[in-house]
Amino acid sequence: MPSPARIGLLGRGTVGGAFHDLVRERAGAVAAASGRAPEISGVLRRDEGDFDEILAGSDLIVELIGGLEPAREYVLAALRAGKPVVTANKQLVARHGDELFAAARDAGVQLRFEAAVAGAVPVIRVVQESLGTIAIERISGIVNGTTNFILSEMASTGASYADALGRAQELGYAEADPSDDVNGADAAAKMAILARLAFHTPVSLDDVTYEGITEIRPDDIAYARELGLSLKLLGIAERRGDGISVRVFPCFLYRGHPLAPIEGSFNAVTVEAPAITEITISGPGAGGLETASAVLSDVVSILAGEAPVHLPGRRLEVSGDLDSSFYLHLEVADRPGVLAAIAEVLGRNGISVKSVVQRGSGSDARLVMVTHRAPESDFYAAHREISQLDFMRAAPRAIRVVEEEFV
Amino acid sequence: MPSPARIGLLGRGTVGGAFHDLVRERAGAVAAASGRAPEISGVLRRDEGDFDEILAGSDLIVELIGGLEPAREYVLAALRAGKPVVTANKQLVARHGDELFAAARDAGVQLRFEAAVAGAVPVIRVVQESLGTIAIERISGIVNGTTNFILSEMASTGASYADALGRAQELGYAEADPSDDVNGADAAAKMAILARLAFHTPVSLDDVTYEGITEIRPDDIAYARELGLSLKLLGIAERRGDGISVRVFPCFLYRGHPLAPIEGSFNAVTVEAPAITEITISGPGAGGLETASAVLSDVVSILAGEAPVHLPGRRLEVSGDLDSSFYLHLEVADRPGVLAAIAEVLGRNGISVKSVVQRGSGSDARLVMVTHRAPESDFYAAHREISQLDFMRAAPRAIRVVEEEFV
Repeated sequence: MPSPARIGLLGRGTVGGAFHDLVRERAGAVAAASGRAPEISGVLRRDEGDFDEILAGSDLIVELIGGLEPAREYVLAALRAGKPVVTANKQLVARHGDELFAAARDAGVQLRFEAAVAGAVPVIRVVQESLGTIAIERISGIVNGTTNFILSEMASTGASYADALGRAQELGYAEADPSDDVNGADAAAKMAILARLAFHTPVSLDDVTYEGITEIRPDDIAYARELGLSLKLLGIAERRGDGISVRVFPCFLYRGHPLAPIEGSFNAVTVEAPAITEITISGPGAGGLETASAVLSDVVSILAGEAPVHLPGRRLEVSGDLDSSFYLHLEVADRPGVLAAIAEVLGRNGISVKSVVQRGSGSDARLVMVTHRAPESDFYAAHREISQLDFMRAAPRAIRVVEEEFV
Repeated sequence: MPSPARIGLLGRGTVGGAFHDLVRERAGAVAAASGRAPEISGVLRRDEGDFDEILAGSDLIVELIGGLEPAREYVLAALRAGKPVVTANKQLVARHGDELFAAARDAGVQLRFEAAVAGAVPVIRVVQESLGTIAIERISGIVNGTTNFILSEMASTGASYADALGRAQELGYAEADPSDDVNGADAAAKMAILARLAFHTPVSLDDVTYEGITEIRPDDIAYARELGLSLKLLGIAERRGDGISVRVFPCFLYRGHPLAPIEGSFNAVTVEAPAITEITISGPGAGGLETASAVLSDVVSILAGEAPVHLPGRRLEVSGDLDSSFYLHLEVADRPGVLAAIAEVLGRNGISVKSVVQRGSGSDARLVMVTHRAPESDFYAAHREISQLDFMRAAPRAIRVVEEEFV
């Protein structure tokens, strides 16, 4: 007869409801795996239940309220009371990670958060446990399903950003207020969490530079496709000398890149290190049942007594200027000397061109090019100069390109 | 000051050597993660070292000898002596899993084998821990890098099977005697291990039906490409009513299938279940350093005190006849009534055709078609009848097609 495991559930929205059902449905499997019979011993809703009472009557706490307060207060109180915590709250872990991990270490209890990044895709476990002691060089991720759906929709139908967003909202892939998804903030929070685990260093959301997809136009996607490129909102956390860099930005990927085939609302993460070459893991990024399933896997790990690794490490410098390759889309007047003038500006700033497509004529003439890697500050200096040339008919559009550097 | 963790290393070939180096290089990270300082306390080589002495002087055993005996004897002795074991030996786990898992459970110690399937790709941990308590429906895997390299080479260059194999041997992707890789036996052993973990049931290599890739011709690959299909050696373990089926066979995948983009010597595994939709994990399947890195992650998990889940379960029936869709390549005489005669045989056996391509004329006339799903026994009955029709110029060639059933 397995001993009971009393779960205090904070929040009962979509994920909370799915988790409640899943615990009931998989109780036998959880008991067989962990030796403990799970039961929901208390539920805190907005207008119902008392946190202190629920905490006192539970062996572990599952936090699915979302938001910063009172989630932070409850999680800290639970950890300090010696109760393990499972949370799906990416904002909480990304913003208050230092404080939460310190509380967990001081109390000697587990804090797990698989569902906070990439839903059902077990990227936290893979980074923290399977790859916990190898020297990770880089993590690249499509970690926001809403924006990947919108970009896939624009690519497959030629729709504008606004129409693709509307379609995502219709289908439930985007919220009524999609700001945090489309401006890159949601992906930035997830990349902060992944960078912390990969590099064993404190990383907060404030350390992450991010851009969103609201300025992307369908013709950028169409032109780039001719160059063999597909557009993604990518998060990249990587070592830079003695420091690291953590960024989120829309960028083009070549066909051979392991993240290039990820379509629709799916999420995927690629980890690179000398000892593993590269490992990619992909799956649905959201959905109540998928997220609840990730929460349950954390609960089972706690009940089975696994101790995930929270290496406290020294603080690494988060660096600024990086080398990048760029897609550059220029609407120009159709007259002699235009290409020469642009080539002169690029060359003087140390930017060399990898491929160029010249299209249209008269009032629709445009140059679309991909540059080789160069410091971003140099590229943007050239970009500023080009925008002031008198034959430019519109502001130049620039999007980063991630080259296939694998295998 | 972390307490030492004495590792007894059995075997010091490519993987053993890489593991030895990796332990030295990552000792600090392992100590930070686990609280134990790893050291190789003894090494058993072919002509050097005494197993009993090494066992007595170690806290855990890493088995990298390969083969069945004496590996089996050593692993059982270590487990019975209460020492956890990490092994990369797929044949051992696939053939003697019942005995080994029982010994580990009886002794209350861990047996870990991440490196036995898909090298550095942490599919064992994902299936066993992240997805350990959900109801997995199906696991599909490209789990042999040699054959995936050969098929990729045939597809990209039009090379024959023999030439592509020669190229794989030149590059070190295939052994001098490649039999176990190309006939499907190696993939079958890995699928037996995955099926055991996914379905919590005893599965041995003898339960797995398998076919290899030695009969594949380049023109099958070329024709199928016109139909949007790419060829892989696929392992599929799935629930079938109250039982399961575990098979390995060459088959075509549609472009949308998550395993279709996996090229070269890479491995990948897709897991499907209602609670997660599908999760795919991919990376390098072999390589000394990659395999050693998977072994090290198991060692760290043991030192950190994680207890993986070995659910003993009831024995499930392994079923025979299944539904499949097929690619059927027919070299026929170029005369009226041929298509009608073939359609009649297929129809009478309950096989309906999804798409057909008619090519060539005179002595090169051929029909290439893809059927809808039907019981394999029905398809093979039709196949036998067709092979006896008087206008057939060669034996019909049939290859399974796995449809995109996802999302």
